[in-house]
Amino acid sequence: MGQELKVRYAQVRQRSLELVAPLQPEDVCLQGMADASPPKWHLGHTTWFFEQFVLRSPVSPEAWGFLFNSYYDSVGARHPRPQRGLLSRPALAEVLAWRQRLDRALLSLLEQLEPGDPRLELVELGLQHEQQHQELLLMDLLDGFSRNPLEPEYGPEPEAAYQASVTQEPTWLQHEGGLVEIGHPGGSFHFDNEAPRHRQWLEPFALSSRLVSNGEFAAFIADGGYKRPELWMSEGWAVVQARGWRGPRYWRDGDEFSLAGRQPRRPELPVRHLSWFEADAYARWAGARLPGEAEWELLAPQLDQAFGVLWQWSASPYRPYPGFAPAAGAVGEYNGKFMSSQMVLRGSCFLTPPDHERLTYRNFYPPASRWLAAGLRLARDGG
Amino acid sequence: MGQELKVRYAQVRQRSLELVAPLQPEDVCLQGMADASPPKWHLGHTTWFFEQFVLRSPVSPEAWGFLFNSYYDSVGARHPRPQRGLLSRPALAEVLAWRQRLDRALLSLLEQLEPGDPRLELVELGLQHEQQHQELLLMDLLDGFSRNPLEPEYGPEPEAAYQASVTQEPTWLQHEGGLVEIGHPGGSFHFDNEAPRHRQWLEPFALSSRLVSNGEFAAFIADGGYKRPELWMSEGWAVVQARGWRGPRYWRDGDEFSLAGRQPRRPELPVRHLSWFEADAYARWAGARLPGEAEWELLAPQLDQAFGVLWQWSASPYRPYPGFAPAAGAVGEYNGKFMSSQMVLRGSCFLTPPDHERLTYRNFYPPASRWLAAGLRLARDGG
Amino acid sequence: MGQELKVRYAQVRQRSLELVAPLQPEDVCLQGMADASPPKWHLGHTTWFFEQFVLRSPVSPEAWGFLFNSYYDSVGARHPRPQRGLLSRPALAEVLAWRQRLDRALLSLLEQLEPGDPRLELVELGLQHEQQHQELLLMDLLDGFSRNPLEPEYGPEPEAAYQASVTQEPTWLQHEGGLVEIGHPGGSFHFDNEAPRHRQWLEPFALSSRLVSNGEFAAFIADGGYKRPELWMSEGWAVVQARGWRGPRYWRDGDEFSLAGRQPRRPELPVRHLSWFEADAYARWAGARLPGEAEWELLAPQLDQAFGVLWQWSASPYRPYPGFAPAAGAVGEYNGKFMSSQMVLRGSCFLTPPDHERLTYRNFYPPASRWLAAGLRLARDGG
Amino acid sequence: MGQELKVRYAQVRQRSLELVAPLQPEDVCLQGMADASPPKWHLGHTTWFFEQFVLRSPVSPEAWGFLFNSYYDSVGARHPRPQRGLLSRPALAEVLAWRQRLDRALLSLLEQLEPGDPRLELVELGLQHEQQHQELLLMDLLDGFSRNPLEPEYGPEPEAAYQASVTQEPTWLQHEGGLVEIGHPGGSFHFDNEAPRHRQWLEPFALSSRLVSNGEFAAFIADGGYKRPELWMSEGWAVVQARGWRGPRYWRDGDEFSLAGRQPRRPELPVRHLSWFEADAYARWAGARLPGEAEWELLAPQLDQAFGVLWQWSASPYRPYPGFAPAAGAVGEYNGKFMSSQMVLRGSCFLTPPDHERLTYRNFYPPASRWLAAGLRLARDGG
Repeated sequence: MGQELKVRYAQVRQRSLELVAPLQPEDVCLQGMADASPPKWHLGHTTWFFEQFVLRSPVSPEAWGFLFNSYYDSVGARHPRPQRGLLSRPALAEVLAWRQRLDRALLSLLEQLEPGDPRLELVELGLQHEQQHQELLLMDLLDGFSRNPLEPEYGPEPEAAYQASVTQEPTWLQHEGGLVEIGHPGGSFHFDNEAPRHRQWLEPFALSSRLVSNGEFAAFIADGGYKRPELWMSEGWAVVQARGWRGPRYWRDGDEFSLAGRQPRRPELPVRHLSWFEADAYARWAGARLPGEAEWELLAPQLDQAFGVLWQWSASPYRPYPGFAPAAGAVGEYNGKFMSSQMVLRGSCFLTPPDHERLTYRNFYPPASRWLAAGLRLARDGG
Repeated sequence: MGQELKVRYAQVRQRSLELVAPLQPEDVCLQGMADASPPKWHLGHTTWFFEQFVLRSPVSPEAWGFLFNSYYDSVGARHPRPQRGLLSRPALAEVLAWRQRLDRALLSLLEQLEPGDPRLELVELGLQHEQQHQELLLMDLLDGFSRNPLEPEYGPEPEAAYQASVTQEPTWLQHEGGLVEIGHPGGSFHFDNEAPRHRQWLEPFALSSRLVSNGEFAAFIADGGYKRPELWMSEGWAVVQARGWRGPRYWRDGDEFSLAGRQPRRPELPVRHLSWFEADAYARWAGARLPGEAEWELLAPQLDQAFGVLWQWSASPYRPYPGFAPAAGAVGEYNGKFMSSQMVLRGSCFLTPPDHERLTYRNFYPPASRWLAAGLRLARDGG
Repeated sequence: MGQELKVRYAQVRQRSLELVAPLQPEDVCLQGMADASPPKWHLGHTTWFFEQFVLRSPVSPEAWGFLFNSYYDSVGARHPRPQRGLLSRPALAEVLAWRQRLDRALLSLLEQLEPGDPRLELVELGLQHEQQHQELLLMDLLDGFSRNPLEPEYGPEPEAAYQASVTQEPTWLQHEGGLVEIGHPGGSFHFDNEAPRHRQWLEPFALSSRLVSNGEFAAFIADGGYKRPELWMSEGWAVVQARGWRGPRYWRDGDEFSLAGRQPRRPELPVRHLSWFEADAYARWAGARLPGEAEWELLAPQLDQAFGVLWQWSASPYRPYPGFAPAAGAVGEYNGKFMSSQMVLRGSCFLTPPDHERLTYRNFYPPASRWLAAGLRLARDGG
Repeated sequence: MGQELKVRYAQVRQRSLELVAPLQPEDVCLQGMADASPPKWHLGHTTWFFEQFVLRSPVSPEAWGFLFNSYYDSVGARHPRPQRGLLSRPALAEVLAWRQRLDRALLSLLEQLEPGDPRLELVELGLQHEQQHQELLLMDLLDGFSRNPLEPEYGPEPEAAYQASVTQEPTWLQHEGGLVEIGHPGGSFHFDNEAPRHRQWLEPFALSSRLVSNGEFAAFIADGGYKRPELWMSEGWAVVQARGWRGPRYWRDGDEFSLAGRQPRRPELPVRHLSWFEADAYARWAGARLPGEAEWELLAPQLDQAFGVLWQWSASPYRPYPGFAPAAGAVGEYNGKFMSSQMVLRGSCFLTPPDHERLTYRNFYPPASRWLAAGLRLARDGG
């Protein structure tokens, strides 16, 4: 194994520890809802991933595999997700000690691996996986803190990107369509769901140069956006009624709740923490639509705020590309089995580790999800 | 208005009455679940559709509009769907009298309409709508009867097509793919969701000449099909666990429950009443996949059992075609607002009125739905 | 068997048929909620009771016992209560035919019974049971109709008693307390829960001569009765919040919904269809309390509106009397197993068959129930 | 204020801190279910009680009153109980600092109080209240730990009483009944629900000299106790089915989960952690019944294991004594508003602080509750 991978391994693993450093002890067990996980669980699960798929001989006590498996049916039963917040034990200190044991054992194993050993690719997968969880850890924490009337503050928002992404006057970037290619060409790391690269026919279209802003979204609300069923998918309208949505998830009067606590809402920043249903309704109200994921992938290099600001809801359901084959073995459960009833998001967000973004990256969430750092970009027909 | 439309109007409306003729009085109020509606409600709702969108001046008592609106938000509030079975009043006799009043008023109005009057198109839409509900009425009734331990019998299955569709040895029909066109070309009746006709790029593929049979599906079950999570979408597997699915909805030991009551299950007939999740899992087990809706549309003229047997689950999420525009006015709610979290079915089924099928027809249901008369056909990559 | 019992049998059974005579066919299958049952089910269940416990050899088709058992675990499994409304079959005509078969078989059996045969007592129990269901049938029907926006009308309220019970200025009837006896002394029909007659010590108390009126209850509401938690049991207050209670169940603006349809509410009539929680809160607001069941039983002969108007919530949880022993056999499930988390009501109501009331009668319902015809009478400490 | 009260105040408050000393930091936020509360919340709520009702001028930050109010409607809104586990903030250190501030302020206030000041009684109420929560804290913690597959251990069971309470061969202690008096006579601290002392008539009865043992309860299970509906209240049987009860809550194979972790179950120890429904069913199976609370109170001085071992379910619903008046002001919500749908328990348990037990003490829980340290003692009719 190359020195480069070792360094990267150390950096990625270290970053997880840095993320929990500002927390109070009780925070590490906080699970605000069934969809989210406590910080300590993220630390354990990412460690379990290496132990299970790379090391393959446990350095954790018996039963910890049961606790920290997320959704891999093929490697055994698991603790119910909604109850992760009840795991006050193992205590954080024990989890951290396990991380150290695992790191030592893994680095030692890797010393012995020949180039081409499939476990090398699984190490990289494990690092990408941990980076995904670093982003999730913060989004989950925000959800948890948002349920506390004291409006706790984690710290300054971790990356400057979001706060710096002041929106300019938007322009439309055009594409003539035709027979195009999207998807990852291979030759470097990518998730299985980004492949194979394949052809697709597109009609002419245009994308907005930037994301929709808080100020623009406020105009949608002022125009009755949350009260007009004709703007919504039927399923979305039912959710609006059932949950009493009246604005993006973390808007509070004129403020916004964030990892930096409650802050005045700045109209010029991109609107965030809305569901696909809200993004779709806004686009309809604006006389536009959401971008198809192929459209986005083709124009992204020319767009502002494509990466590092907010995930961007696409118009595309999450389904396999033509010729898609899941990765072999248990890691084949990583992506493929989620390809129903979810929508694709593209780009990356201000919580995404900087080296964890890719033009062909396909993120995905159910259309009613709001706790992720998602925004929207408009599209329209015609070149 | 032409004599032809008058005749057709009379025929379609008459057929609804024939469908309820074999029922006991209490049956007309039977609603087995929130997704289904009682027969009497179907009779009322289809009448309301003409009254609301064509006649536009009520011949029904006040408040009936509230009771018989299905999901049209733009024309006002409505009675909650799960409680339709609680509407023992208006009694059937009153609903039938209303149908007669409406028919008279509508035929009288139509006498006066000039060719080209938009209400003529709405009459046709109303008839197509009533035909959809004729099919639904029987599927909903089957659901309701299935919850009765006495296993009631409606009568012989309404159309011979299903019982006659004995499966032959299947063959693969191939298509070289390329730039193709699908969707309705216009010039005759179609739902808005079938348009516009548009181009799409397809890779080479093949479709099975016929539907999967009961016997084949039994082999899937015998091979542990309902016990192997690796065959399922994650969402589907959760449904299998939560609802305890062990086979298609109406299989009972070696028999099958149907509108003809409990009957021995014939292995050579197409398997029916399964969800998209089950269809998808079966295809994965068989080393195949479900057809994309474009694939199906291109090859349908060459397929056996394409129409009149069972709706066929496709691999395609229900989303708008490029350039889709919903119909103007309240009938724009007919299709467009359901384009999330549902899957497309193609073809038609043995309960579909014979003149109500179309190559470009896009039916759609949530992926866990099983009460519709759906089956599956296999597809694979490569010409 | 005496001629008298035969006559009584015929009368009681006949009355059930008269109760359903005014109904539309669909009404007989109407079940508004899980706690209520459709009229047809009541007709079937009361018949099943005689078949199961007296005749003991079925004259009904197989599986009907499963459908019409209510809660007798010791005689076998049963159809789930919340799904009784889904039993469109057996059709009413079949149930009525069964009633006739059963009546013939039962009368024939009874011809042969010697005096003292325990089945004679079970016939009487079956008749009392059917009378209870006659009352229930109408209360359940009112619940079902209340869910229909058309506000259907069953007919004039069945008995004149309620409408005639105009409230007079109340007085307090006093009792000096001491060592008293309550409960049924035996020697004639009574339910097992009314026995044994036993001693109890009471402190001096007084009861109001009449029931609380609509007008008085309106004053409670006007004084913020439903908005002041200090007036309520904690459990009741939670129910008020969760269900949004703002008044008695069938109050609609200035009107009241009843078996006679929507009618102007008369302030001088006793308030009805309220839960124990509401009765208890009203009493606290009025500076009084509810009567203990012993208190009620002692003074009832001197009270107005004790019988035939409304059931009266007592302050007494439904528990066994000292020395209580349930009846032998399956009919021991009749009362005893419900002696937790319910409150006793005393008297009878305007829907109770006139010969079905008794000084020692103990009716019981959970404290949040409102669909029964219940009102309240005040009590206070001190003779 | 006397020196004695100061000393007692310091001791009681100190004990709360000792109880959380063995915990890991994450444990203090653990809430296993909606009925339970996290240890940190108990520490905060008991402090809030003194601040709100005695000090009456906050030494806590704004909004903490909202967080730590339990159920006192008359002093304002409160944080939803099921979400107490989501309050990772305020951190434990902040809560402990608040406790110190409050203690100082309170002791300072008390220096100035004249004898007879009603706040002196409220201090005593606050101490009794904190003692109740000390017991609750441990029962809640056991519930939380029981949901962790690692089966965490809190430490040796806090008091030796339970482990020392080996059961002897039971005898029946008899009482001839008659006109008796129960309830607190006044003159020293008691909760409002224990008064007034009042007369009651009892028939002759007998109580078992000791509690039912694990071994005896195992015989009930072996005899089909959890499978025979005739032994159960109807409501209890529904709970048994719905929750899949097959034994007392913490029985695990031949072991028992406890604050000492998983331990072999000792047949000679009293059975614990069962609901009223289970206690009632066991008594019926044993041909006995549960004691009325008056019966218990009369014979308790002669019973073994009356105090300090397990709370004992009585046959008595929790209702006010004749002449009961709740305490004035907000503390009137302490007991009175819970007097519906709960059952009385008598005695005390091994987690009860030793100076917190009283002959007339009325504890109360809903009949399906199992997380409290409750056992049962048999009673029977006849002296």
